[in-house]
Amino acid sequence: MIKRALNVTREADFSAWYQAVIAEADLAEESGVRGCMVIRPWGYGIWERIQRLLDDRIKATGHENCYFPLFIPLSYFEKEAEHVEGFAKEMAVVTHHRLKSDGAGRLVVDPDAKLEEPLVVRPTSETVIGAAFSRWVQSWRDLPVLINQWANVVRWEMRTRMFLRTSEFLWQEGHTAHATEAEARDETLKMLEVYRSFAEDCLAMPVVAGEKPENERFPGAVATYSIEAMMQDGKALQAGTSHFLGTTFSSAQNIRFQNAEGQLELAQTTSWGVSTRMIGGVIMVHGDDDGLRVPPRIAPWQVVIVPMLRDTDEDAALIDYCKALQTDLAKQSALGEPVRALLDLKPAKAATKRWGWVKKGAPIVVEVGGRDMAGGNVSVIRRDRLYRADGKLDSVVVAQGDFVAGIGAMLEDVQSSLHSEARARLDANITRDVTDFAAMERAFDGRYPGWVEVQWSKPTGAELDAVVERLKALKLTVRNVPGEAEAADGACIFTGKPAVERILVARAY
Amino acid sequence: MIKRALNVTREADFSAWYQAVIAEADLAEESGVRGCMVIRPWGYGIWERIQRLLDDRIKATGHENCYFPLFIPLSYFEKEAEHVEGFAKEMAVVTHHRLKSDGAGRLVVDPDAKLEEPLVVRPTSETVIGAAFSRWVQSWRDLPVLINQWANVVRWEMRTRMFLRTSEFLWQEGHTAHATEAEARDETLKMLEVYRSFAEDCLAMPVVAGEKPENERFPGAVATYSIEAMMQDGKALQAGTSHFLGTTFSSAQNIRFQNAEGQLELAQTTSWGVSTRMIGGVIMVHGDDDGLRVPPRIAPWQVVIVPMLRDTDEDAALIDYCKALQTDLAKQSALGEPVRALLDLKPAKAATKRWGWVKKGAPIVVEVGGRDMAGGNVSVIRRDRLYRADGKLDSVVVAQGDFVAGIGAMLEDVQSSLHSEARARLDANITRDVTDFAAMERAFDGRYPGWVEVQWSKPTGAELDAVVERLKALKLTVRNVPGEAEAADGACIFTGKPAVERILVARAY
Repeated sequence: MIKRALNVTREADFSAWYQAVIAEADLAEESGVRGCMVIRPWGYGIWERIQRLLDDRIKATGHENCYFPLFIPLSYFEKEAEHVEGFAKEMAVVTHHRLKSDGAGRLVVDPDAKLEEPLVVRPTSETVIGAAFSRWVQSWRDLPVLINQWANVVRWEMRTRMFLRTSEFLWQEGHTAHATEAEARDETLKMLEVYRSFAEDCLAMPVVAGEKPENERFPGAVATYSIEAMMQDGKALQAGTSHFLGTTFSSAQNIRFQNAEGQLELAQTTSWGVSTRMIGGVIMVHGDDDGLRVPPRIAPWQVVIVPMLRDTDEDAALIDYCKALQTDLAKQSALGEPVRALLDLKPAKAATKRWGWVKKGAPIVVEVGGRDMAGGNVSVIRRDRLYRADGKLDSVVVAQGDFVAGIGAMLEDVQSSLHSEARARLDANITRDVTDFAAMERAFDGRYPGWVEVQWSKPTGAELDAVVERLKALKLTVRNVPGEAEAADGACIFTGKPAVERILVARAY
Repeated sequence: MIKRALNVTREADFSAWYQAVIAEADLAEESGVRGCMVIRPWGYGIWERIQRLLDDRIKATGHENCYFPLFIPLSYFEKEAEHVEGFAKEMAVVTHHRLKSDGAGRLVVDPDAKLEEPLVVRPTSETVIGAAFSRWVQSWRDLPVLINQWANVVRWEMRTRMFLRTSEFLWQEGHTAHATEAEARDETLKMLEVYRSFAEDCLAMPVVAGEKPENERFPGAVATYSIEAMMQDGKALQAGTSHFLGTTFSSAQNIRFQNAEGQLELAQTTSWGVSTRMIGGVIMVHGDDDGLRVPPRIAPWQVVIVPMLRDTDEDAALIDYCKALQTDLAKQSALGEPVRALLDLKPAKAATKRWGWVKKGAPIVVEVGGRDMAGGNVSVIRRDRLYRADGKLDSVVVAQGDFVAGIGAMLEDVQSSLHSEARARLDANITRDVTDFAAMERAFDGRYPGWVEVQWSKPTGAELDAVVERLKALKLTVRNVPGEAEAADGACIFTGKPAVERILVARAY
């Protein structure tokens, strides 16, 4: 039995393990403010990498960034009943604009500073951005409008969990307006594909992209699509959504344009977003019992150099050797960017630092001691294959020059090995041979670590509600209709009617 | 008299001109939410450039980014009286977490969803970050803590003005904790210098860096430093501040560490920030009667290519010619980065586009017509020198290859010419020969477009209050004590006592 860096394993208690990774990898912590977390440098560094890489892709598809107000007047929500129904129960509301002293040394809200109209802290920005679109769009020449914002949003969740469900979270929300339904539907699918390929290529996180069932649509959407990732406990995580909104918001916010024939039409809109929740996905897809493993593309530091200092005269030469190594590495490229290498000179023992970086999940840790330096070598640890077959730490001595020359290939190999491992797990854990409801009940009995793909008749209304209830009793939900699933052929496992499509059913976060 | 692109000149009405630039350059607009603006793509693109360039400098000086909660419990502010005194009157307060229908079709705040403790929307984050520091800092080995966050903050301003003073604004706020006062004071000055050099090098905006007088200190600070820029109407704009906070917040938030001798000490902290206000400064320093002029380093697009399309068969070849130009430009470097070139293919007339980009202030606009293409040329307009001496638009025909080869040098020349122009204006408009108060009154009589540098005895308490009142009657304030000013020599112009330092006095935004 190998002693691992964390005190809890995935096998023993997945939920406690998740919290332990967040704490031990210095990703985030409770803030003392209900439901809000502090994102620490290593966690925020991963978010910055996600932002940079995804932002490049959002811009490459023709979108521009803007910034809209944090506060949305309450009346904006009254215009779209279904939308407000979906969010009203979890809105933080600003009602006053001043504090005062109560005369006894305590601060209180000043009752004389009540706002005429309460302001909602944005839970999402369709209403306020729709109002802007109605000012910007007059003619078909003004379309499409393709914008995005990176922002914080607030949803007053009753039960919170770091990264997965917090009262305040960070995200990007894209909003677009188009002249035709076909163009808006294309946009919705284009951004779904941006999310899918981003998750696969950058997060090394395989996902299934597809349309959500009617009961899981975004409030106000005509169609909602998602990417779903499989966590190591077999649960699904919705990691991004893209919505075709039709004319729901253009009706409510009056986004009209004169078409080429001079007639007024309502614009067709879309919205799409991903959030800091993705980091929760990265933890639960790539983490192991020694902590996090960060895919190189999103690692704030891809290579961390730890000099084995001994408080002797040799230290200065060792530091110089490590600095030269850092400089050489920064001149190399990996995955299309310069290598990001850190020299860790903090005042701590080398072994403490090594395990700190293992828990953080830096892709490659390089230790350099006097003997390494004397031989012109470095000792290299790859985070994706930490142990040898005999259970010992797999630290390999390599000539410094060879290590530098091979760093690009090595980082690319770490990226793809993490992806392959997760892809194999996903593929191995989707069961497709369930043909009746009883078999599905049996499939999820005990600790089945995966998903079931079954076919259904795409029920709606009360019939769908009944299906949702039956699934809910098993703690299951319909995740989506995989775009790449085979055609249905046979009976719906819920209604017995002819099936029309195949769906993914899973437990979910 | 040249017809200019804006309907109002700086000379005629500076304030109306400022609003016109913001509207005509598509920088921002009123949002319909009190005191909050919508930052449009061109304005937000400038902010993204500012973020990228300043973030690099913040990281290069050893700071890491984090993210702290938007909401701060009211009780956090009770711990530091002076700090809350400074902000209590302008705080947006969340008191409820749910809306409900009133039964008559209107949405109302649900009185049953009142928070036990009101939450303040952060006006600045010393209190909540100090609470985190108190968890992070135990030993001298944990110091220094050097962090920064990019965030939105809210101050409920009564009179707002786009970019300069809005209820919500975007900024970065750095927060650090140190073992010694000397180290914290060094940090304060180091970040002041980062701001100064950033303003000069990236914004092409000359500034005067120095310490603020006692009455202008940040609430809770021991010392506050600022960079002050001169707008074209002669007013000063405080464009960034850096605060030495001593033990004010470490006392309030209990940030203590065990020193090397095993004794408990309070940490010494600093904070420093710049905001979207900088964009207001860029407008008022570089704008002219044709709109904005954006320094190339912070221009979202440095070169905009406008093909002169005519709806003929020749258009396709012209577009290909322009695409090749765009590709060639993107391979060049200017100011240390690849050139950012846009090909504008929007459905509008070429002249409309040209003037649109002139008003936005793109550094270089390239027009390409059939005749240019036939000759292997391009027609180049530099935004910093738009007109010839005879008043005609200064559009120069250049061989395409020469233009591409020279683009790096041309953009560097635009950057430095904007800086030189602003530097000359600043230097020419600081009067240093005012030796008594009456002379200062005369200096600011009428429309003196500048600042006065005078010497004073550095009064404190009631004596300072009296000085502040006398200045206020002239709508003047003390901006700062320029770090590079000469030593004082003679009498204070306010108190008649021996002067100890020289100060800048100005009208200000």
